Amino acid sequence: MIGFGEATAVERVGDGRYEIDLDGDFAISGALNGGYLMAVLGRAAVAASPHAHPVTTAATFLRVTRPGRAQVVVEPRKEGRTTAASLVTLVQDGRPAVDALISTGTLGDAEPVHSGAEPAGMPPPEECTELPPLKGARGFVDRVELRFDPSTTAWLDGRAGRPELRAWFRLRDGHPPDAGALAVAVDALPPLTLCLGLPGWAPTVELTWHLRAVPAPGWLAVHCSGRLLGDGWFDEGVEVWDSAGRLVAQSRQLARAPE
Amino acid sequence: MIGFGEATAVERVGDGRYEIDLDGDFAISGALNGGYLMAVLGRAAVAASPHAHPVTTAATFLRVTRPGRAQVVVEPRKEGRTTAASLVTLVQDGRPAVDALISTGTLGDAEPVHSGAEPAGMPPPEECTELPPLKGARGFVDRVELRFDPSTTAWLDGRAGRPELRAWFRLRDGHPPDAGALAVAVDALPPLTLCLGLPGWAPTVELTWHLRAVPAPGWLAVHCSGRLLGDGWFDEGVEVWDSAGRLVAQSRQLARAPE
Repeated sequence: MIGFGEATAVERVGDGRYEIDLDGDFAISGALNGGYLMAVLGRAAVAASPHAHPVTTAATFLRVTRPGRAQVVVEPRKEGRTTAASLVTLVQDGRPAVDALISTGTLGDAEPVHSGAEPAGMPPPEECTELPPLKGARGFVDRVELRFDPSTTAWLDGRAGRPELRAWFRLRDGHPPDAGALAVAVDALPPLTLCLGLPGWAPTVELTWHLRAVPAPGWLAVHCSGRLLGDGWFDEGVEVWDSAGRLVAQSRQLARAPE
Repeated sequence: MIGFGEATAVERVGDGRYEIDLDGDFAISGALNGGYLMAVLGRAAVAASPHAHPVTTAATFLRVTRPGRAQVVVEPRKEGRTTAASLVTLVQDGRPAVDALISTGTLGDAEPVHSGAEPAGMPPPEECTELPPLKGARGFVDRVELRFDPSTTAWLDGRAGRPELRAWFRLRDGHPPDAGALAVAVDALPPLTLCLGLPGWAPTVELTWHLRAVPAPGWLAVHCSGRLLGDGWFDEGVEVWDSAGRLVAQSRQLARAPE
């Protein structure tokens, strides 16, 4: 098993053109995890940019992506002093699979001017629960360690509840919680529709996430909650906190409910 | 003064190509409001789609857009049974000014399966406050009626507080609260940095918004709050509720703090 850094590394093959062998360990039932794909797209965006971090990523998922060969095309849209914007597309079998608008920038380590948010309390990782892997997610579970706050897992016993999940997250290979790890973290939890008693595949249509600070080493705390399921659409909002108690990522996705 | 429908109408000039005269009334100090531009891009996306609504819009703002002639280019990325995805670009003076990934769909009027959110209480519009127009926003104020919850306007008296604003919103010409009006609503309030005692221009870098339901006629309630201002970046999350108490739009933007 290669490390996360290698599993997301893109090889430059031309101006704004990259190649990668997508790692099957990040697939769930044969479809690659959207967070892993965003990590790959962020690596390509940064490789083609003068800035160090993918500060904001807005991804539209067009088609299921499979393990194996894929291309990443980075089209620069604007280069500024503090940010550079690009359209980054993952292409597989000659067709676009994921489009992402990514703005890169360089984050420092200054204290925030304002932080109005506190991490929701969660028991320490050793008191949280590892779930039995979802069907077809064996490789993913070998890569990503998740420990769930037991107060958010009533659905495991067949009880429906509020659409809310809290879990600790880290990569099992010891890869530090960098921008790539955060891209995985914001899309690593099972769909919130499970909490509502609706099992099944819930494809993400759009996911936007923002890198707010470079995380400190250690576990990440991932808080996921939803507001509305209607007309076949539902939202998942995620906040990620680092071991120093700082808000390091925010995301929201809009997904289709299981049919 | 033309109506909002006409001010956002795009003229088809070719396959996926549209033209528009951008309306100076939607400019603030000469720069067109991002919400108005998203309304225009949404109209073009729907015009080029088999579906009725711009369900999700992720916009990156590349350059200031001025009133006057502009082109909108819609590049189809995927057409599916329930959604169609496109890259929609606003072009002015031969350069891209706004890129947006827009997925269209058709929303019905079924009751939500789950809604965990209640609108935050706000006094009725007649007990809320019209602000003195920001400098250079006279035309915008003639278009957009905003009445602020007085409990969120301490900054008017020079007091810094929490980054939170609540306001009623409607278009003054009587245009119904449709997708276009919602695009304006999610970007109509002054920047939250004002609440923190930081006046000045706060350019939006990325704004993603989701249309969750077609609003009922009447006022919209707009709730805007921020989590973090750090490293020169801040977030604004918006929820919009219709007169029937339904959550009709969600957004988050990442912007640069005033310098």
